[in-house]
Amino acid sequence: MPNPSLLILPGDGIGPEVMAEVRKIIDWFGANQGLKFDVSEDLVGGAAYDVHGVPLADETMAKAQEVDAVLLGAVGGPKYDNLDFSLKPERGLLRLRKEMDLFSNLRPAQCFDALADFSSLKKDVVAGLDIMIVRELTSGVYFGEPRGIFEEGNERVGINTQRYTESEIERAARSAFELAMRRNKKLCSMEKANVMESGVLWREVVTRVGKEYPEVELSHMYADNGAMQLVRAPKQFDVIVTDNLFGDILSDCAAMLTGSLGMLPSASLGAPMANGRPKALYEPVHGSAPDIAGQGKANPIACILSFAMALRYSFDQGAEADRLEAAVEKVLADGVRTADLLGEEGVTPVSTTQMGDAVVAAL
Amino acid sequence: MPNPSLLILPGDGIGPEVMAEVRKIIDWFGANQGLKFDVSEDLVGGAAYDVHGVPLADETMAKAQEVDAVLLGAVGGPKYDNLDFSLKPERGLLRLRKEMDLFSNLRPAQCFDALADFSSLKKDVVAGLDIMIVRELTSGVYFGEPRGIFEEGNERVGINTQRYTESEIERAARSAFELAMRRNKKLCSMEKANVMESGVLWREVVTRVGKEYPEVELSHMYADNGAMQLVRAPKQFDVIVTDNLFGDILSDCAAMLTGSLGMLPSASLGAPMANGRPKALYEPVHGSAPDIAGQGKANPIACILSFAMALRYSFDQGAEADRLEAAVEKVLADGVRTADLLGEEGVTPVSTTQMGDAVVAAL
Ligand SMILES: CC(C)[C@H](C(=O)O)[C@@H](O)C(=O)O
Ligand SMILES: CC(C)[C@H](C(=O)O)[C@@H](O)C(=O)O
Repeated sequence: MPNPSLLILPGDGIGPEVMAEVRKIIDWFGANQGLKFDVSEDLVGGAAYDVHGVPLADETMAKAQEVDAVLLGAVGGPKYDNLDFSLKPERGLLRLRKEMDLFSNLRPAQCFDALADFSSLKKDVVAGLDIMIVRELTSGVYFGEPRGIFEEGNERVGINTQRYTESEIERAARSAFELAMRRNKKLCSMEKANVMESGVLWREVVTRVGKEYPEVELSHMYADNGAMQLVRAPKQFDVIVTDNLFGDILSDCAAMLTGSLGMLPSASLGAPMANGRPKALYEPVHGSAPDIAGQGKANPIACILSFAMALRYSFDQGAEADRLEAAVEKVLADGVRTADLLGEEGVTPVSTTQMGDAVVAAL
Repeated sequence: MPNPSLLILPGDGIGPEVMAEVRKIIDWFGANQGLKFDVSEDLVGGAAYDVHGVPLADETMAKAQEVDAVLLGAVGGPKYDNLDFSLKPERGLLRLRKEMDLFSNLRPAQCFDALADFSSLKKDVVAGLDIMIVRELTSGVYFGEPRGIFEEGNERVGINTQRYTESEIERAARSAFELAMRRNKKLCSMEKANVMESGVLWREVVTRVGKEYPEVELSHMYADNGAMQLVRAPKQFDVIVTDNLFGDILSDCAAMLTGSLGMLPSASLGAPMANGRPKALYEPVHGSAPDIAGQGKANPIACILSFAMALRYSFDQGAEADRLEAAVEKVLADGVRTADLLGEEGVTPVSTTQMGDAVVAAL
C-alpha cells in the first residue's frame, strides 16, 4: 500500500513558520511509529498570488483533490488588502473549501488546564471547557448567488445571498449528530429563525434529522442569544451546529473564551473518497497574524493539533492523535510558553521553533 | 405647546411588568419636573396577535408614526413558536423599525461599577467598560428580497438576501461618526469585506464618510475578529458601527460582557420629523424572558434606562436623563438587586415593583 499523502499549504504570515514545526512532528511519526506520509508542499493565498497572480493555482487545486488530506497554515495580509475581491488571499481558501465540498467544519473550543488563567473570562466559567462547533462550510452567504456590487439608479448596491437547500442542511446536521453520538449526546442548533426564512428551513431540517438520533438531546437557539450564552456560561454546550456565517462568528467568539486562540485546530471534512477517507483540510483557527510574522514568535500548537485531528479523522489513528495531544498538554504543564501565552510573571517565552522542539521531545 | 407624546407598547412576556415601572418614572417627571407627556398604550407582538390576529395592527402602526417617541417592552414567546413566519411576534417589531425607517440603533454596552463582579469576565477586563454599538436597523438580510422558502428541483431552498445601498450605509455611518464626535472620537466599523461584496461596499462608504470627520480615528475589523476582540479586550473600543445582522449578534455579545443584561437600554432613531425630533423607538436589549414572566422577578432597569435615552435623544433633556441614570446608579450602589443580579451571598432580591419604587425614591 502506498503511504497516505499530505499536501501542505503554509500560506501567508505566520503560516510557513508554524507549518515548519508540524513537519518535524510528521517526521517524528514517520521515524518512530512507522506512520509515513508522502508530503508535498504548494502555495495558497497571497503567497500563491505573488507567484501565479491568483490565490490558488489550478494545479494546486487539482493536487488538493487527489491527496488524502490537506494541511493549511493561514492566508491573508495587509499587502493584499487592495486587491480585487476575486484575487484576495481568502478566495484561495474558499475555493478549496468549495471545490473539495468540505461541508462540515469541526472547531473545538477547548480550555487547556494549564492556560485557564489566561482567558479574559473567570476561571470557573471556562476551566474544563470542551465544546465542538460544527460549522456548515460550503454554502450560505459565503457562496450564494447573486452576489456583487451593482449599479442601481444613481447609486451602487452591495448584494450577497444567504441560500441553503434541504440537502445542504441535512448533511451538515447529520455530521453534527454523528459527532454528538460520540460525545455527550447533546446538540444545540443556532440560527435566526425568528427573522430569516433560511433559518426556518434550517431549524425544520435539523429537527427532522434529529428523529434519526433519538438519543441526542436537541435544542435550538437564536444565534444572538447563542453569542450571549457562550459568553455567559459556555459549559452549558457540548456540540453546536450552525451555518457558515454564524459559525464564523460564533466559533471565533468561542475560541477566544478559552484564552487559547493560538492553541485551537480545526478540521474541514467532506464526503468519503474511493479509499473511504473523507476529503479533508486541516487548519488552525487563528489567522496569518501579519504583525508577528517572521519573528519566530508564533505559537505552532494550533497547527500541530490540526495534524492531530488529521490523524484522528483522516487516518483512523486515534491513539496516535491522543499521543500527540498528550505531548502538547505535557509541554504546557511544564510551563513552556510562546509569547501569546504569557500571563504569568517571570516566564520567558520560547520561540516557535523551541515550542515545536519541545513537543517533539515530549513525544 | 402640546405635551410631547409617547406611545407605550409593552408587548409580551416581562414587557408589561417592566413597562409598569417606567410609567411610575414618567409620572414622577410629570409631577416633579414639569415634564408632562401625553401617554397612550397599545399592543405589539404576541399580545397584538391574540387580539387582532396580526403582530401589529395598522392603527397601531399609524399611531407610532405620529407620536414623538415609542417605548417598547419586548416581543415573543413559546406560545407563538409555530405561527406562520409573517405572523410571528417579531414581525411586529420589525415592521415598526422598517416603516418608521429607524436606521440607527444605538446599543450601549456599559458595565455598572456596582455590578462589575457579576460579569462572567474578569473584573479588570470589564470594569468601567462603556462602548456604544451603532447597528444599522432597516436593511441588510433582515429585509432584503428575494426571501422565503422555495421549491427547487425535488427539494426546498431557504433564501435571504443581504442588500445594502450606498445611501443606507452612508446614513448609518454618519450617525455613528456624529456619536463618535460627541464621545471619544474613535470608531471601528465591522463587516466581512474579505468574504462578502456587501462588506466591501460597506467599508468603502464608511471610509468615504470618514473623510468628513477627520478628527475621528476610524478603523475596520472583520466581524469574526470583532467578536473575538470584544471578548478579549472590550475596552479597546469606543463606538462600533456595523450592519443589521452583525449588529444583532455583536451587540448581544457585548451586552453580555457587562454582566448587566437586565440593565441595558437601546434607542432606534430615524430621520427628523417636522418638529425637529427624530423618529424614535426605545426598548431594552433583553428579550421577553417568558420563563420568568408574570412572577415579579424581572429587572425593570433596562426599560427605565430606555426612557432615559428617550429624554436625551428625543426630548433634549440631557440633564434629566443624567438625573435618572444617577438615580439608577444610586439604587445599585445601595445594594438593591433584582433576582437576575444576584451573585453576592446574603442579598435578598427585590421584586420588579420594588426596584421601580427604589428608583423613584432615589429620584
Ligand atoms: C479567512 C476567512 C475567509 C475565513 C472565513 O471567513 O471563513 C476565516 O475567518 C475562518 O473562519 O476560517
Ligand atoms: C426580536 C428580534 C427580531 C430582534 C432582532 O433580531 O433584531 C432582537 O434580537 C433584537 O436584537 O432587537
